[in-house]
Amino acid sequence: MGPSKEMLNSACQCSLVSRVVIFGGTHGNEMSGVALAKHWLKEPSELQRKTFVAEPCLANPLAVEKCVRYVDSDLNRCFSEEILSSGSQSMPCYNYLIDIPKKDNVYLQNIGKHSLCLELGPQPQGVTRADVLSRMRELVNCGLDFIDLFNQGKEFPSFETDIYRVLSRVDYPRDSDGEISAIVHSGLQDKDYVPLKPGHPIFTTMNGEDLLYDGETVVYPTFINEAAYYEKKVAFISTEKVHLKVPALKLETGAEHNGTLQ
Amino acid sequence: MGPSKEMLNSACQCSLVSRVVIFGGTHGNEMSGVALAKHWLKEPSELQRKTFVAEPCLANPLAVEKCVRYVDSDLNRCFSEEILSSGSQSMPCYNYLIDIPKKDNVYLQNIGKHSLCLELGPQPQGVTRADVLSRMRELVNCGLDFIDLFNQGKEFPSFETDIYRVLSRVDYPRDSDGEISAIVHSGLQDKDYVPLKPGHPIFTTMNGEDLLYDGETVVYPTFINEAAYYEKKVAFISTEKVHLKVPALKLETGAEHNGTLQ
Repeated sequence: MGPSKEMLNSACQCSLVSRVVIFGGTHGNEMSGVALAKHWLKEPSELQRKTFVAEPCLANPLAVEKCVRYVDSDLNRCFSEEILSSGSQSMPCYNYLIDIPKKDNVYLQNIGKHSLCLELGPQPQGVTRADVLSRMRELVNCGLDFIDLFNQGKEFPSFETDIYRVLSRVDYPRDSDGEISAIVHSGLQDKDYVPLKPGHPIFTTMNGEDLLYDGETVVYPTFINEAAYYEKKVAFISTEKVHLKVPALKLETGAEHNGTLQ
Repeated sequence: MGPSKEMLNSACQCSLVSRVVIFGGTHGNEMSGVALAKHWLKEPSELQRKTFVAEPCLANPLAVEKCVRYVDSDLNRCFSEEILSSGSQSMPCYNYLIDIPKKDNVYLQNIGKHSLCLELGPQPQGVTRADVLSRMRELVNCGLDFIDLFNQGKEFPSFETDIYRVLSRVDYPRDSDGEISAIVHSGLQDKDYVPLKPGHPIFTTMNGEDLLYDGETVVYPTFINEAAYYEKKVAFISTEKVHLKVPALKLETGAEHNGTLQ
């Protein structure tokens, strides 16, 4: 559960899902996930469905306690094949995340057999906002309902949708000392997923000079001016909109579930 | 420069102001002040006026470097008489802050002969937002213009205004372990300085139960759901609106300044 707009990434092999783990607090200062994981650890009934077992998990309790993104290193950049195969962790998991080359997949999703990642926000660090929390709760429940219906054999018909594919990560302008020399322009702030046209302002220097987007095509910026991404030298992530046909989905014949957990 | 709505506190003895210090980065993750102080350290000309010397100052460089509120202890709670008189600091300063008993004045303003404190926001921690920064910049310049006009002998006539006087600090509801058990209600979120009437919801539990404001009078909450105030056990600060007549202000006779710095 992360800091920006919601995105659903799913990769499904069409076999029964019998165990679901719901992680919150992978980053200890993203409070919607922290508050929900803590609540579900005490009262997990909301997560249960007929066809699978669901378990909530507070991913990084030490970072949660300190209310920081992480303590030693960013947990959601620690799930690389290298670290996972170093012997310090062993989990029966496979990498199914779409669009990230295996060598670059360092995210929590890398340890899930099937993963569904919800990114909500922008949400300020260290604050539990009722509106963001409520939306995350709805989305988690919607995901669980989906798995439950899938397990029960429901067919999901093919449909068309837009997705936003990462093009590049754009850093803040910097001076010769590497210090940030311009801030995100007020016209770009809070405009996640809004088309950015060539020639539009993206940064302002402290002397009031506007810096313009010099690309040749319309892009869709997201993760704009994220507190957590200053250290990663990312002012925003530039994406392109792609229209996709999503194939129909149905449980493998013979694997249907009869509505109760086996 | 702090995390919530702007408030101007001034206490003026009507004598010439010859030196002005502008602090930013007292809290290292309140980025508008950090960015402006850094900029003014490089380019201080914007701060200069005819009648006084102005100096920018990055108050807590270590916290700024780490992008945290503070490192060991909250710097803006360290300016108590006890700490100031312990010998570790010595500054020729007096306490002129209105409405805070001397023994409780632990804020930066305590070391200023005359202080003008700008609180802007809410602003998310660790993010430089162009809109907040621009407003803070305007307010700082407005404050400097005011001092300059005052030094030049301009008379500021008496006027009437509303102020918000602190009534109490309200904690989040907590369970028997001391853990927060309810979050700020969506109807209160972002409603700083908006009247809160008896019976209106202020918190929501994770089970969806609304908790109502059980006071008997209208109050004006502020610093609502501040990230930095979770550790201080403050969900919001309850204030009352008071209508005040502010007396006229003019430089003492004989102390007029002739428009150049002496």
